[in-house]
Amino acid sequence: MAINDLSKDLMPIASNTMADIVEVRLREYLKKKSFRPGDALPKELELAEALGVSRNVLREALSRLRMLGMIETKKKRGMVLARPDILGTFERVLDPLIIDTETLQDIFELRLVLETGLAELIYIRKTDKDIAELENIAKKEVNHDNSFRIKNEIAFHGKLYEMSGNDTLKRFQIMLLPIFDYVVTLEKKPTKGKVNHMDLVQILKTGTKEDFKKGMEAHLKPHFDRLK
Amino acid sequence: MAINDLSKDLMPIASNTMADIVEVRLREYLKKKSFRPGDALPKELELAEALGVSRNVLREALSRLRMLGMIETKKKRGMVLARPDILGTFERVLDPLIIDTETLQDIFELRLVLETGLAELIYIRKTDKDIAELENIAKKEVNHDNSFRIKNEIAFHGKLYEMSGNDTLKRFQIMLLPIFDYVVTLEKKPTKGKVNHMDLVQILKTGTKEDFKKGMEAHLKPHFDRLK
Repeated sequence: MAINDLSKDLMPIASNTMADIVEVRLREYLKKKSFRPGDALPKELELAEALGVSRNVLREALSRLRMLGMIETKKKRGMVLARPDILGTFERVLDPLIIDTETLQDIFELRLVLETGLAELIYIRKTDKDIAELENIAKKEVNHDNSFRIKNEIAFHGKLYEMSGNDTLKRFQIMLLPIFDYVVTLEKKPTKGKVNHMDLVQILKTGTKEDFKKGMEAHLKPHFDRLK
Repeated sequence: MAINDLSKDLMPIASNTMADIVEVRLREYLKKKSFRPGDALPKELELAEALGVSRNVLREALSRLRMLGMIETKKKRGMVLARPDILGTFERVLDPLIIDTETLQDIFELRLVLETGLAELIYIRKTDKDIAELENIAKKEVNHDNSFRIKNEIAFHGKLYEMSGNDTLKRFQIMLLPIFDYVVTLEKKPTKGKVNHMDLVQILKTGTKEDFKKGMEAHLKPHFDRLK
């Protein structure tokens, strides 16, 4: 048996496994010592020595924390704890081609849940200016081809998220859009709800929060029907 | 000026920066070549040569993709594209102590939006067995101290997410719970909605989806009021 085969059978302990362990250990250390954003971390050499690992392994683990946005290197101060971008890494893995069917379906549903629940925040924060902008988007929708329709769909629902006044939620929906579109294109024919975008604008102008919830539900009904 | 100072002023190009570039390049390559889960990647040596980078830099980039769950090493087959756990990395950075106040508030709102929108899925999928279990959780709530109250709160709302039949959503809410609790403990005194858990159970038994939406809204009202 060649050495190469042997190492394949034995599955060598990759330096990656060590990086896994060091990553978790660093994470625990930062938590235990209550590090806050801006606090300086010990030097690489000290960390490597304390952990009893090579600097290469330590650097691999630090590189992961850096990728997550948990640490950053500051001029003169060295490594400090940073405020991670909580959606940054999420974005990296949201690719419809590599996500399994069940999770795709889950994400599709998640967006429906969000759009329905959004009424609460919209009715707390909507302004006349918002509604005028939304109306302009809805007005542009008539008599256009399919690619334009999708663009407008995104603009309309994106504006609704914006009106929620919640930036995290807005970024989140932008990330979910490709997944949503992917699932919709798997449908045989595009279906339309009885309540269209212009109807929703009218409800926002004169209707109650309950009216809007019912309107949004009717608007999304074809999607919900697919779940049954 | 000591060499040490100079290097601090010039900000040396870290191997980390190279790993950033290689990570993006690998990601683009996998997408362009339409790699699907299970497909084998080229060998490390080939990749390093094609990219014109050292194996150390390549390994650092691969280690990140491995951390994201995008690649895994299979016995005899080497590195293959894997199905990433889309919530795995998200979980790593969701620490209330390092997230800024505005994002904490956004996440708090996100959960309120989800709980309200959840009615759609619950009414499509709820079973009598589910409702019986939920009722048992609600029954245990009387006359207990605060720590038990929080535990039961988690059990009750967790069960509702479970009833949605959406695993991604359920895992998501488990991750958001520490953030939610953190924000709630910043309140001066715990506030209670007019509709309690037992009321919600009764609605699920005999009420319509609209009744449930209104009930949940009343249950969460103290939280929504904080937003105004």
